Amino acid sequence: MIPADHPRYRSLVARERLAACAREGIVTPEGLAAHGRGEAFDYLLGERTTKSALYAERIAAAMLLSARRPVISVNGNTAALAAPAIAELQGASRARVEVNLFHRTEERVEKITRLLESAGVEVLTGRAEPLLPLSHPRALCLREGIFSADTVLVPLEDGDRCAALVSLGKRVIAIDVNPLSRTARTATLTVVDEVTRALPAISRAVREIGPEEAERLMSCPDNSYFLRAALDEIRGFLEHALD
Amino acid sequence: MIPADHPRYRSLVARERLAACAREGIVTPEGLAAHGRGEAFDYLLGERTTKSALYAERIAAAMLLSARRPVISVNGNTAALAAPAIAELQGASRARVEVNLFHRTEERVEKITRLLESAGVEVLTGRAEPLLPLSHPRALCLREGIFSADTVLVPLEDGDRCAALVSLGKRVIAIDVNPLSRTARTATLTVVDEVTRALPAISRAVREIGPEEAERLMSCPDNSYFLRAALDEIRGFLEHALD
Repeated sequence: MIPADHPRYRSLVARERLAACAREGIVTPEGLAAHGRGEAFDYLLGERTTKSALYAERIAAAMLLSARRPVISVNGNTAALAAPAIAELQGASRARVEVNLFHRTEERVEKITRLLESAGVEVLTGRAEPLLPLSHPRALCLREGIFSADTVLVPLEDGDRCAALVSLGKRVIAIDVNPLSRTARTATLTVVDEVTRALPAISRAVREIGPEEAERLMSCPDNSYFLRAALDEIRGFLEHALD
Repeated sequence: MIPADHPRYRSLVARERLAACAREGIVTPEGLAAHGRGEAFDYLLGERTTKSALYAERIAAAMLLSARRPVISVNGNTAALAAPAIAELQGASRARVEVNLFHRTEERVEKITRLLESAGVEVLTGRAEPLLPLSHPRALCLREGIFSADTVLVPLEDGDRCAALVSLGKRVIAIDVNPLSRTARTATLTVVDEVTRALPAISRAVREIGPEEAERLMSCPDNSYFLRAALDEIRGFLEHALD
């Protein structure tokens, strides 16, 4: 359908994939709108991994490597767009993977679990309990998963849930292409990059980084540096956008 | 559901309305993603009508007033968000209203026609013919509607179709919150404002403007002025966004 040499090929393929997953009930209407917001910000970032995002991806890898109990929290959009990349990152980092949904139904949890498993992800299962400081059913998570994690990677997370995880003392790595979102501002570290580029970049870094470099990276710039760097990229893009 | 004093009340209500219309088949999955892109740009514009957008809205009103055959082209997202505002603008400007869809099926055309009619819009009907220089079924429109219009208002239009209308020598007024979109760059005049704010503002201007002011407005800045002004607004917003 979409010619592979189209300048926005990746973006258009992702959009079709998400629309198909919406028809299957894996992605919600709200998830489609959220994806559109992400498309806009990725467009403004030039649809590429910026230098500062690549730096954040290396720090994210160091955080996963130094974690005692790392967990990757996966929602519908992330599963639809990046199931194989989640499998790859799990293989590299040995993190647990938990399905955690904003619009949670058991049916959707099951569908997303099956999608992830078919891509080779080992998904944590069990009885979810209302353990997070959020209203039900958003409070639900697994005791052996997110609840007992010290470091949680949340691609495409809602602001309230990101804040809830931080309030429990966890180190939260967000992947969010909008540097102004509440998630981006609240997380311990925000990778301002599109999720299908960010996850493989983190996996590569997990494999490359040795213990010394991991330690050095852990003492690197705080989150606001990366948000400002992303805003600077967008402003630079806008400066010449109509030339 | 959403408290009326929420700072982003209008935006959240619009999103819920669109998700509901998606479940009814009025809005497509692609339409939801497009709405999300729009939300991002509206956020960057401060979710308000800027001074330059208000100016463009007055010129749009003058263009409608001076047209011999003005037509408003309505798609699924516009109908879902702004059916009453379309009725108001039709009443003020006496423009014809035609349903014209990117993802066209007769079933969707009928659903959207019924939605518009229930809001008081008089919708042009008839047998659509492949009259536009686009591949079928995107070429379809009504001979007595868009095809014979001299001025077409296209809220939330696709870039190819905007270009096709311009190539037929029509004056095209776009409403598009993304000043960098192909639609925004291709239209005769682009109102860079959110559709539910833009349409009522154009209706008000249609009622206020006299013939002399209309003539004066018709000789006003060209489209690139309004695109640059919108970009400047976004850059100004980003400058202080993290303070």
